Amino acid sequence: MLGTGMVGRTLGAKLRELGHEVTMGSRSGDNPEALAWAEGVGARVATFADAAEGAELLFNATNGGGSLAAIDSCDDSALDGKVLVDVANPLDFSQGFPPSLSIVNTDSLGERIQAAHPELRVVKTFNTVSAPVMVQPSLVPGHHNLFLCGNDAGAKAQVASLQQTFGWPAEDLLDLGDITMARGVEMYLPLWVRLFGAVGTPNFNVHIARG
Amino acid sequence: MLGTGMVGRTLGAKLRELGHEVTMGSRSGDNPEALAWAEGVGARVATFADAAEGAELLFNATNGGGSLAAIDSCDDSALDGKVLVDVANPLDFSQGFPPSLSIVNTDSLGERIQAAHPELRVVKTFNTVSAPVMVQPSLVPGHHNLFLCGNDAGAKAQVASLQQTFGWPAEDLLDLGDITMARGVEMYLPLWVRLFGAVGTPNFNVHIARG
Repeated sequence: MLGTGMVGRTLGAKLRELGHEVTMGSRSGDNPEALAWAEGVGARVATFADAAEGAELLFNATNGGGSLAAIDSCDDSALDGKVLVDVANPLDFSQGFPPSLSIVNTDSLGERIQAAHPELRVVKTFNTVSAPVMVQPSLVPGHHNLFLCGNDAGAKAQVASLQQTFGWPAEDLLDLGDITMARGVEMYLPLWVRLFGAVGTPNFNVHIARG
Repeated sequence: MLGTGMVGRTLGAKLRELGHEVTMGSRSGDNPEALAWAEGVGARVATFADAAEGAELLFNATNGGGSLAAIDSCDDSALDGKVLVDVANPLDFSQGFPPSLSIVNTDSLGERIQAAHPELRVVKTFNTVSAPVMVQPSLVPGHHNLFLCGNDAGAKAQVASLQQTFGWPAEDLLDLGDITMARGVEMYLPLWVRLFGAVGTPNFNVHIARG
């Protein structure tokens, strides 16, 4: 798990609950607060590079602005052929609220990670819902959708299987296509932020109703 | 109705069906194809300026790239105090498919129209669904949402009333706030385009499911 913030911890705790071994990666690898949290759920804490080293599956749960640096700090051999679940959004809060996107329109964070690391199999997903909903979709009643995109069909299938163990029904997982589709799901964030304000809870999601 | 393309015609026909007088505005005001179509539904055709002149309610259904020029060509006196329903999206197909946005991230077409014409009361809405769904929301089963934003509460209420006569239940109309919220709904379009590809029909829409 690259990133020890709220998103990384929520995903990490769920993975531990499901019996997976989890190493939380951070820049320093010895943030006391992250260490204390990790102890509580039985996870380890390490640098980004050390966390990636032994991992079967990588999650990018860093801030969008720090994602490339975090992944770049890992050895190529620790990334080679692995699936990276890119959960991050390139939100820019430097001008206050609402945030803009630091990568947008003709590019996306997902594409940039995939282009910088062709040895990774990047799957962009989870970035359109709040952390609690990622790991407990039943917080939102009824059917609602989670989007996946990436260049590797096997990687998407692997991630979709894991999402089903989180409680996401297979029929609610929507494969949008290759990694360029990350533009669509990242550019949804400005609407997500406004919907959060309008509905008054982070426990919401879109359901694609179709005729 | 500023714009005689598919969106303008779909909205114009619905307004005629509901008994409203409709003047379709175009650059030339005498496009033969638009004239033939207008005759069929009992609408008039005029220049943008002439269409705006006698209108009680204005719709911007032009291409996003031509919207400001179309509105600029109207006399200020023909716009003063009027509600303009901004249906357009600043889609840029110059680099092919999928389109990017020509105004994005820290600005939006809706904001730009409002800033250029403070005498108008701009309501951004309808831009997140296909034209058939705009005027016949029952094409998509179940509850699904239409977003409105704008600086004038009275204008939004007037547009919401009209939308209810189109078949939109009041509870499905979601007021996101002021015109800066146009960024969110316009930046949803890149996802809309990809969803269209994934679900295989333009008759779809998002329902905001909430916990």
